[in-house]
Amino acid sequence: MFREEIKVLDCTIRDGGLINNHYFTDEFVRAVYKAMSAAGIDYMEMGYRSSRKYAPAADYGAWKYCDDEKIREIIDGIESNVKLSIMVDAHRVADQQFVEVDKSPVDMIRMATYVKDIDKAIAMVNKCHDLGYETTVNVMAISTENEFDLIEALDQLAKCPTETVYVVDSFGYFFCEQIEYIVKLFQMHLPGKRIGTHCHNNQQLAFANTIEGIRHNSNLVDGSLFGIGRGAGNCPLELLVGFLKNPKFNIGPILKVIQDYMIPMREEIEWGYMIPYAITGLLNHHPRSAIAMRKTKAKDKYAEFYEEIVDPQD
Amino acid sequence: MFREEIKVLDCTIRDGGLINNHYFTDEFVRAVYKAMSAAGIDYMEMGYRSSRKYAPAADYGAWKYCDDEKIREIIDGIESNVKLSIMVDAHRVADQQFVEVDKSPVDMIRMATYVKDIDKAIAMVNKCHDLGYETTVNVMAISTENEFDLIEALDQLAKCPTETVYVVDSFGYFFCEQIEYIVKLFQMHLPGKRIGTHCHNNQQLAFANTIEGIRHNSNLVDGSLFGIGRGAGNCPLELLVGFLKNPKFNIGPILKVIQDYMIPMREEIEWGYMIPYAITGLLNHHPRSAIAMRKTKAKDKYAEFYEEIVDPQD
Repeated sequence: MFREEIKVLDCTIRDGGLINNHYFTDEFVRAVYKAMSAAGIDYMEMGYRSSRKYAPAADYGAWKYCDDEKIREIIDGIESNVKLSIMVDAHRVADQQFVEVDKSPVDMIRMATYVKDIDKAIAMVNKCHDLGYETTVNVMAISTENEFDLIEALDQLAKCPTETVYVVDSFGYFFCEQIEYIVKLFQMHLPGKRIGTHCHNNQQLAFANTIEGIRHNSNLVDGSLFGIGRGAGNCPLELLVGFLKNPKFNIGPILKVIQDYMIPMREEIEWGYMIPYAITGLLNHHPRSAIAMRKTKAKDKYAEFYEEIVDPQD
Repeated sequence: MFREEIKVLDCTIRDGGLINNHYFTDEFVRAVYKAMSAAGIDYMEMGYRSSRKYAPAADYGAWKYCDDEKIREIIDGIESNVKLSIMVDAHRVADQQFVEVDKSPVDMIRMATYVKDIDKAIAMVNKCHDLGYETTVNVMAISTENEFDLIEALDQLAKCPTETVYVVDSFGYFFCEQIEYIVKLFQMHLPGKRIGTHCHNNQQLAFANTIEGIRHNSNLVDGSLFGIGRGAGNCPLELLVGFLKNPKFNIGPILKVIQDYMIPMREEIEWGYMIPYAITGLLNHHPRSAIAMRKTKAKDKYAEFYEEIVDPQD
């Protein structure tokens, strides 16, 4: 698949950080940045810019805040054309600081939002757009929104200055027919805007659904190294780059950083296809119950977990 | 997705046996049979019926031969509506014995064949059909066949008495657009026959591609418990059953046998998504080079493995 407009964003550090409270070492983040630079990836997301009021500094690593100064330390001295993005939760905006884009190493700010918080997301888009940043709005948990509310939100987004609006299958519920439907719905209500696709791998469909987005003209797509991400994780970046035939991409550095860092890391922290995440995905639930049960002694009691969810006796 | 005609075949023992030379314990095979019976799965494949001349008995477990007597030991005393299948390699037929279907516990015989061996497969179909068995022809490695030869083979199959012809993505190379193309090609050249879909998971597309087959009216589809199978394995049966909304299926017993047997087994033998299998899939290669490298000390040297394959210097 070759289409020049397709851009790829690596969310390894950001989505992976949800597993380990954003405590990645500088060495690792730097190795990923080097790999993305050598591989020709378009964007790399460094983490969240969260408020230290909502997210106390004692509880999280540096990639929960993504201070400009911290980012500069990482990228210093590495030749790169990779643009950097950070994410902001629209419903957790407080005292975060943003300087003009030409004074920051950050190029793009992505607002993660539920439909109910769309006005907060738009307020942040306006602010960041005025500072010169590229922006996206990532509409989460679409599989549980009713279409009336979703369309109202899209119609509002159509009028705001963001360039890109993302379909986010937060629960890993969709299969490809539904991705096609939603991407087309977004296009209908967001004339002229770029559509993004961000999929989760609960049912081993993240890569297939990302392809489906691409087939229907989604032009900004997310992947992560070896699929790292909360719960079942994301679309594996290595598969995505293998699929896209754009000669600007180079899969070698991606394979190298996976063998050097992701395989050892997978022994320490857990992500990827597991039955409890398949169950929450199949049932269109948030993965939090699966994440919780994976921390207990009953972490492999799948049949019992399924019964509790489908028939909770309350 | 509900369509009454869709039948599901579990190939856990057969495809899984390719990892461990078919040495599954009777206890395990019996547990799988019980689970399939309780889950309402349509067919369970017990293994291969191989010739002991080609496959010496010293080298393989019982499920390489699937003697009727051995199968009877396993199923004895278990209430079940599951039909049983066995597989025969069309190019390795020698002295295997087959009795009339009403004297055998086997209901269906599946011929695995390359396009070049299609005449051998048809000879076996004729023989098995005359003995009263249901038959299928599983056309392997389609992603490396040229269409002229493939169509000639399909036109021959159209005239033979087999009920079902399978699309087999042996190398895990296809994505959904190609599955749609091939399934439609099969339908065009095989009027009145049922189309089967058997996918491999090299690129985490086995489930997505099986769904794609189903969307285009494939009505016999294969899965295996926790995706067990050689290399990257197969479409996970638990995902397939979760997707199909036919009330005859019951996912509980499938989850239970996975937690009781598959999770411990995965500690002993290796299958599933791994970068070397992703690489051979992406490049449309047989997985044998990946299987071999996973047995060496360099089993996680992905970048080097990729370079060797794409530019072998010979």
